[in-house]
Amino acid sequence: MISDIELLKNGERVDDLQLDGLRIIQHPDYFAFGTDAVLLSNFAQVHKGQRHLDLCTGSGIVPILLTSKTKGESFAGVEILEYMAGMAARSVALNGLCGKLSIVKGDLRDKALFPKVSFDVITANPPYMPVGGGAASVNDHKAIARHEVMCKLEDVIEAASRLLVPNGKFYMIHRPSRLGEIFSLFERYGLAAKVLQFVHPRVGEAPNLVLVQATKGGSLMDIKFKEPLVVHG
Amino acid sequence: MISDIELLKNGERVDDLQLDGLRIIQHPDYFAFGTDAVLLSNFAQVHKGQRHLDLCTGSGIVPILLTSKTKGESFAGVEILEYMAGMAARSVALNGLCGKLSIVKGDLRDKALFPKVSFDVITANPPYMPVGGGAASVNDHKAIARHEVMCKLEDVIEAASRLLVPNGKFYMIHRPSRLGEIFSLFERYGLAAKVLQFVHPRVGEAPNLVLVQATKGGSLMDIKFKEPLVVHG
Repeated sequence: MISDIELLKNGERVDDLQLDGLRIIQHPDYFAFGTDAVLLSNFAQVHKGQRHLDLCTGSGIVPILLTSKTKGESFAGVEILEYMAGMAARSVALNGLCGKLSIVKGDLRDKALFPKVSFDVITANPPYMPVGGGAASVNDHKAIARHEVMCKLEDVIEAASRLLVPNGKFYMIHRPSRLGEIFSLFERYGLAAKVLQFVHPRVGEAPNLVLVQATKGGSLMDIKFKEPLVVHG
Repeated sequence: MISDIELLKNGERVDDLQLDGLRIIQHPDYFAFGTDAVLLSNFAQVHKGQRHLDLCTGSGIVPILLTSKTKGESFAGVEILEYMAGMAARSVALNGLCGKLSIVKGDLRDKALFPKVSFDVITANPPYMPVGGGAASVNDHKAIARHEVMCKLEDVIEAASRLLVPNGKFYMIHRPSRLGEIFSLFERYGLAAKVLQFVHPRVGEAPNLVLVQATKGGSLMDIKFKEPLVVHG
């Protein structure tokens, strides 16, 4: 039995996820997960017997929550930052999820990382912001989580399409302002949006997040809209 | 001076539009305009000196309202049903708008109807529903307004793209369920969605209409979302 102390490195803390006793390790120098990761894990469905992968997993928050909220049996997360991937793997151990959830340190653009067509469900809470003129430094870990420094929207959608089985489901949360690019890239990579749900900061305000469920190989017709979510503050 | 009586045919009535004394002729056997036409005319902007065209104009409701709500100087509407086009033209006369708004009886798919690249602003409140297995009769005037019997979504978007000047604006209201097709067709015909506004039947319910503003030749990036509209009843 590993004690919590042995799993923690200098400067890290353990946060209680308020769900089935789940906990997560975080470090103040690295990107802390937000409401969007929780919204994504509520939105995504992983059914019994299905294999799941979370892209840009960061602290591992999305697959850790999914192990408890959905019925899938095999969960995985891929993270490009070595320290972050190690921390996520230690959170997996902390929760006794080692047989159920694997954290892989790697680049989702690397086609050798996973076999093609090997997941039923893929989730992603990718960096939201394009890299502008003043590009964020690749050494700034928080910038890498927020800006498309190491992973563009197209990389995420290409990877999802490559790794999903036919009719497999892709769940993503992103900024509504990127919806034009999202639809265009979905079409380019053979995905079709099937369910959309907008998230509004307050009733009556424009949405600032969108949850999208796409199907690999689905038709462009008949998108379902779920009732809007309102997240105060 | 033509009297109202002379402008009305058997079975027609005149409705007051509650805006600057504008009125419209309608016939109970033909499609009556709904809230969506009013929402579209509120959403669209026609600036001073701009040339406007409304596709699938029906009773002429959208351009009639636009003459009062926006600053454009030249308005037009195209309608495929002969009776409807005639009725819309008589509504134009009823409102004394003959020098400002022209109603054209014709098929928007007809490339000879208008010169290419001749409008700054195009609006459309097209039929929402694809023609299913039990195709609506082409003799059913109400079905033609609701179903894509004589005009598909692609026809509307192709016509808008063909007739707009570069950087011209296309305003459309449609069902959110068709958004995947709308984005795909926009990209195919060189339009890019720039502003979206969803319309909800009640607070907390999924949207049942979407207002879209697209620009001819615009980039796919950075769509603006307006605050949701709620239309009770």
